[in-house]
Amino acid sequence: MVFGMPTIKASTLLNIGIAVFEAVGSPRYEAEIVSSSLVEADLAGVHSHGVMRIPYYVEHVREGLIKPGARVEIVRETSTTAIIDGGGGFGQVAGRRASEIAVSKALSHGISAVAVVNTGHIGRLGEYTLYIAENGMVGLGFCTTYRASVAPYGGRGRRLSTAPISIAAPSSRFPFLLDYATSIVAEGKLRLKYLSREPTPEAWIVDAQGRLSMDPSDFYERGGALLPFGGYKGYALAMAVEILSGILVGAGFPCSGCYKGMNSILLIALDPSVFVGRDVFVNDVSKYIEAMKSTPPAEGFLEVLVPGELEYRSREEKLKTGVPVEDEVWARIRRTIVELGLDLDRLLSEATPP
Amino acid sequence: MVFGMPTIKASTLLNIGIAVFEAVGSPRYEAEIVSSSLVEADLAGVHSHGVMRIPYYVEHVREGLIKPGARVEIVRETSTTAIIDGGGGFGQVAGRRASEIAVSKALSHGISAVAVVNTGHIGRLGEYTLYIAENGMVGLGFCTTYRASVAPYGGRGRRLSTAPISIAAPSSRFPFLLDYATSIVAEGKLRLKYLSREPTPEAWIVDAQGRLSMDPSDFYERGGALLPFGGYKGYALAMAVEILSGILVGAGFPCSGCYKGMNSILLIALDPSVFVGRDVFVNDVSKYIEAMKSTPPAEGFLEVLVPGELEYRSREEKLKTGVPVEDEVWARIRRTIVELGLDLDRLLSEATPP
Repeated sequence: MVFGMPTIKASTLLNIGIAVFEAVGSPRYEAEIVSSSLVEADLAGVHSHGVMRIPYYVEHVREGLIKPGARVEIVRETSTTAIIDGGGGFGQVAGRRASEIAVSKALSHGISAVAVVNTGHIGRLGEYTLYIAENGMVGLGFCTTYRASVAPYGGRGRRLSTAPISIAAPSSRFPFLLDYATSIVAEGKLRLKYLSREPTPEAWIVDAQGRLSMDPSDFYERGGALLPFGGYKGYALAMAVEILSGILVGAGFPCSGCYKGMNSILLIALDPSVFVGRDVFVNDVSKYIEAMKSTPPAEGFLEVLVPGELEYRSREEKLKTGVPVEDEVWARIRRTIVELGLDLDRLLSEATPP
Repeated sequence: MVFGMPTIKASTLLNIGIAVFEAVGSPRYEAEIVSSSLVEADLAGVHSHGVMRIPYYVEHVREGLIKPGARVEIVRETSTTAIIDGGGGFGQVAGRRASEIAVSKALSHGISAVAVVNTGHIGRLGEYTLYIAENGMVGLGFCTTYRASVAPYGGRGRRLSTAPISIAAPSSRFPFLLDYATSIVAEGKLRLKYLSREPTPEAWIVDAQGRLSMDPSDFYERGGALLPFGGYKGYALAMAVEILSGILVGAGFPCSGCYKGMNSILLIALDPSVFVGRDVFVNDVSKYIEAMKSTPPAEGFLEVLVPGELEYRSREEKLKTGVPVEDEVWARIRRTIVELGLDLDRLLSEATPP
């Protein structure tokens, strides 16, 4: 897999993304927001939400699923809440706006809840909760996606989306960051197993007949469904996530057949100033992280990791060494660049060769 | 187990609880709140938080861990947030107050966050989110308890409490109710296995050497720790719960050794009126619940259940048939009644014999 995998500077990837999105009709600020969102995901090691999405986003634009330059509009607002309509545009633009508004309202009122509806792919949910944490607050994020792919606990059939959840908080070391799908694995991981014709290490899916299965083709060829993580507890969490980020915000729910847009989110920001105070909060979260990290490891583990730690380490490292991009992904991005008539050589002039 | 298990009317249990708590110094309104909290838990089938707690609460009062008649005080407040100090009293009194304030503030401002610190056992977290849901809103609840009993993912050693989480929403059928510990099982379930000298069905704990174990005595006799549910995802959620309901609200965190009180909670209320609207919300949640329930069952299941459904069914049934109370629990309650010099016969006059 590593053979021939190019490692590319984050700044080069950023420029590529900007050029591509401008070429399909995004104004500069939008191209910057979207490209930066993807590159930040790669820096964090979350490649499923990284530049591999560039060609897909271009396809979405061509198919009319994403409208470049869409107007982002606040359609409903109170002093503490807002619903933002993304106008069918790039989810990252509305998502960024929502994070900013959430922080600003929480600064004035201690707490806020801001929703985004009617957008394309929102990117990495953790981007928005991290933004809130970087502003000294606790951020909660809930996301519904249009595609039902997960079975309820005890059921067979696709009823829930992967319904990601994210919670972030500031510390003096690195931000605490919970950011995951409520399915047992992200669908991308199942797809990799499918493409390499490997069984999954444990049952990740239930087949169409309702039997646990380790064969990914039961999902892709025969109507199986992903399992929620952690049995009924993960299932309950997935439902709660969709109630908060789908139904409450007016987007509906995926298995209804009339869910609006590709993604919808709800962000909640809580300002420690109206609770324990900012300094004490950051100090205590830092101590709390230390307490976890000082736990002696269990059998089979080298150390105890804290949510957000790997992402932070990855970013620190990749800012220096560059972002590894898989051959196939890289080939597809280059094809997209060429198809759009962009100057490949100029854009790649900063790329480190494999 | 069922042999000789008495079934007792909810109203009788309520009266017993009221009499007991008044006898240890609670004013009438407090005795009613606490007793009703316990009986409601039994009605919902959550017996771990039911009348079995009566003798323990009496002990807590004797040991000075719970102060009857404690003054519940708002120590910090904004238009959307509050911190309530329970004065070291019964957690249910401060918890009830917090739910009422959360609803009232969310009615005026769309969203609110209310914390409770410095109390005894808070009871069933779902009681408070349910109250919010019964008022037409979405309720989120997070709880930290003083006892570290759960290992971080990949670690050995007790660092986290069972860190319960609850999310509730109204529907026209029954309220959606997620309400669980973020440990793989509640500690009470592990204790039952220990007392009956049975192994657990899968590894619920890690022993002091960091090996997965199905032997409950590794927890009770040799310093093992409970596992979080769902691997690293449940661990991350447990940390988020303690950050929100321990650190943010000023109670600290359990493994610091200086956590304040027995329980602390954070409640968040969201009013659908400022989002999709109340009627649409309740209607869509109801449809969503139907969509889950209509999923054909997987192998080994008879039906798909929705979080909150079993609790609702249990309550409907037990209001008619009475609450089954385990022999040992019942014996302990009767002993408590007698010790307090209460009129056993009068209190029991309504009890249905076994």
